[in-house]
Amino acid sequence: MTEVEERKPQERLQERFTQVLELLQRHRLIEESVARQGSEQQERVDQLVQQQHLAELQQTLSELHPADIAYILEALPLDDRMTVWQMVHSENDGEILLEVSDAVRETLIADMDEHEIIAATKDLDADELADLAPELPWDVVQGLMENLDAQQRERVRSALSYEDDQVGAIMDFEMVTIREDVALEVVLRYLRRLKELPDQTDKLFVVDVAGILKGVLPIKRLLVNDPELTVQEVMADDPVTFYPEEDGSYAAQAFERYDLVSAPVIEKSGKLIGRLTVDEMVDLIREESESEALNRAGLREEEDIFASVWKSLKNRWAWLAINLITAFVASRVIGVFEGSIGQLVALAALMPIVAGIGGNSGNQTITMIVRAMALDQLSSGNTSLLLRKELGVAFINGVIWGSVIGVVAWLLYENWALGVVMTAAMTLNLLLAALMGVLIPMTMVRLGRDPALGSSVMITAVTDSGGFFIFLGLATMFLL
Amino acid sequence: MTEVEERKPQERLQERFTQVLELLQRHRLIEESVARQGSEQQERVDQLVQQQHLAELQQTLSELHPADIAYILEALPLDDRMTVWQMVHSENDGEILLEVSDAVRETLIADMDEHEIIAATKDLDADELADLAPELPWDVVQGLMENLDAQQRERVRSALSYEDDQVGAIMDFEMVTIREDVALEVVLRYLRRLKELPDQTDKLFVVDVAGILKGVLPIKRLLVNDPELTVQEVMADDPVTFYPEEDGSYAAQAFERYDLVSAPVIEKSGKLIGRLTVDEMVDLIREESESEALNRAGLREEEDIFASVWKSLKNRWAWLAINLITAFVASRVIGVFEGSIGQLVALAALMPIVAGIGGNSGNQTITMIVRAMALDQLSSGNTSLLLRKELGVAFINGVIWGSVIGVVAWLLYENWALGVVMTAAMTLNLLLAALMGVLIPMTMVRLGRDPALGSSVMITAVTDSGGFFIFLGLATMFLL
Repeated sequence: MTEVEERKPQERLQERFTQVLELLQRHRLIEESVARQGSEQQERVDQLVQQQHLAELQQTLSELHPADIAYILEALPLDDRMTVWQMVHSENDGEILLEVSDAVRETLIADMDEHEIIAATKDLDADELADLAPELPWDVVQGLMENLDAQQRERVRSALSYEDDQVGAIMDFEMVTIREDVALEVVLRYLRRLKELPDQTDKLFVVDVAGILKGVLPIKRLLVNDPELTVQEVMADDPVTFYPEEDGSYAAQAFERYDLVSAPVIEKSGKLIGRLTVDEMVDLIREESESEALNRAGLREEEDIFASVWKSLKNRWAWLAINLITAFVASRVIGVFEGSIGQLVALAALMPIVAGIGGNSGNQTITMIVRAMALDQLSSGNTSLLLRKELGVAFINGVIWGSVIGVVAWLLYENWALGVVMTAAMTLNLLLAALMGVLIPMTMVRLGRDPALGSSVMITAVTDSGGFFIFLGLATMFLL
Repeated sequence: MTEVEERKPQERLQERFTQVLELLQRHRLIEESVARQGSEQQERVDQLVQQQHLAELQQTLSELHPADIAYILEALPLDDRMTVWQMVHSENDGEILLEVSDAVRETLIADMDEHEIIAATKDLDADELADLAPELPWDVVQGLMENLDAQQRERVRSALSYEDDQVGAIMDFEMVTIREDVALEVVLRYLRRLKELPDQTDKLFVVDVAGILKGVLPIKRLLVNDPELTVQEVMADDPVTFYPEEDGSYAAQAFERYDLVSAPVIEKSGKLIGRLTVDEMVDLIREESESEALNRAGLREEEDIFASVWKSLKNRWAWLAINLITAFVASRVIGVFEGSIGQLVALAALMPIVAGIGGNSGNQTITMIVRAMALDQLSSGNTSLLLRKELGVAFINGVIWGSVIGVVAWLLYENWALGVVMTAAMTLNLLLAALMGVLIPMTMVRLGRDPALGSSVMITAVTDSGGFFIFLGLATMFLL
C-alpha cells in the first residue's frame, strides 16, 4: 500500500502537472525538429537533450502518488499519455490502472503486452483484480487466475458474479476479524502481531466459529475502554450491514447518512463475506453524478475528453439520431399548418418562442424530479401533490410571461388577436411541459429505466411538437 | 454522538417511512372527518383514535437516527413535515437541522420559537453552530454566542469568517493532538483517559509546544507498532494538509484521490487549527453534483420539491426571463427572413430541425467540457487539441445527418436544391455548436463564473439564432 509521505496536496500536484506538460512540450519540439532537419550531428545533439528531458520526466513521475499519475494521464492527449505511461515504474502500473477512468484504462491496456499486464496486476487484491478483469484479454485473465491460491480465485469469481453496481462487486476482502469472548488486551496484542492493518479500518468485525457476524468493535472503543473488558462487553451488536445483492447506490446513501468509514457485508445467513469502505463509496457517488449529467445529454460514459473522433461519434450518434426523429416529427407538425403560415408569416417567427420557453420550463421541472428521485424523496403518496404544484407554477409563469410576449407580439405585428393567441399558447405549452416533466421520469422509473437517461431530449421533443401544434392550431382556429 | 445501534439500513428505513406515511394519512383522514361532521360524541371518539395514532407515530420516530428523521422530513409535504417535526424529541433537533437541506431547514426553523432554537442548538459543536448561524434569527445567534466560552466563541467567529465552500468553513475542531517525543505506550494510556474519541478519527495530530504541526500518527501505526517506540519514530511527517482559505472542492478531490478519512488544516505558519473529515467531503461532493445539475437547467438550490408555488416561481423566473429574451432574439432573426418564408413556406417547417439538432449536439459538447473542468482535466495546453476534436466530430455528424435529412427534405418537397441547403446548414450549425460548446464554458471560467451555470440555456440560444440565420440566409441566397 502507498505511504502517506508520497501524497501531494492539490497545489503541488498542479505544479508537477505543469512541469510534466513543459517537459512533454520540449520533447515534442525536438522530435519535430529531428523530423525536419536531416543533419546527422544535429540529430545526435538533439537526442542527447531528448534523453535528458526524458530522464527528468521520469524523475518527476517517480515522485508522484499513483493517483496523481492517473490524474495526469487523464488530462493528457493520447500521444503524450502514451509517452508518460511508458515511463512509469511498472510496480505502480496496477494501482494506476485502478485509478483511471474506464475510457483511459482502455487506451493504456491497449498499449501493454501480455507480459506487462501480468507484471502490473500480480500484486493486486482479489477485488481489484475483479475490477480490471472485464477489460483484460481473456487468456491473460486465465493466466492470472491460475496463479492465485484457491481462496483468492474464489473471491475473484464471486466478485465477477455481481453486476458492476452491486455491493458484491464493490466490496473488498481485507478485514480483521476477532472473537467476542476475548479481552481487548488480547485484541491489541493480536493487532500488533499483524504488522499492518488494511486501509480504512475503523472497526474490527466480531464473528463466531461459523463466521457469522456478531457485531463490530469500533477502533475508537478499543482505544478508550479498559483492556480487561471483553469484546462482547464493548462491541456494537447491531451495526449497519449490507447484502452483496444490494444496489451500491443505496449503500452509498447509508454511508453518507450515518457517516460510515467501513461496514460489513453479510450473506442472508449472517455470514461475513466482505467489507465496504468509504473510499469506494466516494468514487461511486462521483461516478453516479457524472453519468447522470452525461445521460441527461444523451452521452454514454466511455468517452474521455481526448477520445478519438471516431469514438466520440459512436458515443453520440444514437441520441442525435433520436433527436433527428423528434425534430422531424415537430417539422411535420408545422408542415400540417403550412397553409396557415402562408397566410400569416408572423406565425413562423413567433412559434419558436412558444416551443423554446416550454422546453426550458420542462427541463427545469424534469431536473427537479430526477434529482428528488435520485435521493429517494418521491413516493406514490406525494405524486399528485407534486403534480399540482408544478402545474400551478407553470400556469402562473404561462400567464405572466405569455402576457409579456403577447403584448410584444401585438405591438410588433399590430394584431391584438395574435397577442392573445400567443399568451394562450404559452400557458398551455407550459402546462404540457410541467405535466410531462413529472410524468416522463416517473414512467421511466416504472419501466425500470434510469430517469435521467435522455430526459432532456424527450421533454424537448414534447414541448417542441406540442408547442407548434398548440400555437399553430389556435392561430388557425381564431386568426384565419 | 449517536450510537451505532440506532442506525438502520436502507430497507428498514423504507419500512419506517411507509409506516410514518400511513400514520400521517390516517391522522389526516380523521382531521378531515372532524372538520366535516359536527357531532360532539363522534368528535370525541375521533380525538381518542387520533391521539393513539400520534403516540404510535411518536414511538416510531423516537427509534430513528437523526439522519433518518431528516430524510423523512425532506420527503414530506409541508403540512406533514410540520406534524412530524413537532413530534420529534427536542434533544435531536440540532442534529436533524444539520442534516436537512437548506430549503427544508428554513421551513423547520420558521416553525420554532426562540426558546426551542436555543434548546436545539446549545449542545452543538462550534463548527456545527457556525453552519446553522446564517439561517437563525440574529438575536438568537447573539444569545447563543454569549453562552459559549471564549475558545468556542472564537471558533464560531473564525468559521463564520470564511465563505461556505472554503476549507475554513467546513473544518471541525475536534482533534486529538499529541507530542512527538512520547512513547506509543503513553499515547495509548492518554487515549484511554479521554473516554471518547471524535468521530472519523483515523489519525492523531502531532504538534510541538507552539501548536505547529509536525506530522500525523495514523491509528493503524499506533496499533501495530511496538509500544516502546516514540511517536516521532512512527509518525508520517509529510501528511496532506489544507489551508483554511482553500476551496473545499479541491480538498474533496484530494480526499478522493488519496482515500483520506481525516486531514489536518493548518495556517501558513504551520499552526494546526482544525480538521477535515471524509463525511463532510462526501456531503460536499453530493451537493456539488446536485447544484451542477440544477445550475445547468437554470435553477438555484433553495427549492425543495414541496416548496410553495411562490418559492418555486422565485427560483425559476430569472432563467425563464433570460430564455424569453434569447427566444425573442431568435424570433427576430426569423422575422428578418419573413419575405423568404412567405415565398417558400417549407422553410418554416424545416428550420426547427437545423436549430434543434444544433442544440442537442452543442449540449453534448458543453456537458463533456463542463465535466472535464470539474475534474480539473483542462489546461491551456490542450484547448486547441480539444477544439479540433470537437469540430471534427461536428463536421462528420453534420455531413452524415445533414445528408439524411437533406434527402428527406428533397423527397418531401421535391426540391433538390432545398435538400442541399438543408445539408449545408446542418453542417455549419453543428460546427457553430461545437465551437461555442467549447468556448462558452471556457469564457465562464475565465470570468470567474461557474461553467455549468445556465450553460444549456446559452448554448441553445446560440444554436437557435445561429441555426435560423444560417438556414434562412443560405435559402434566401440560393433558392429564391
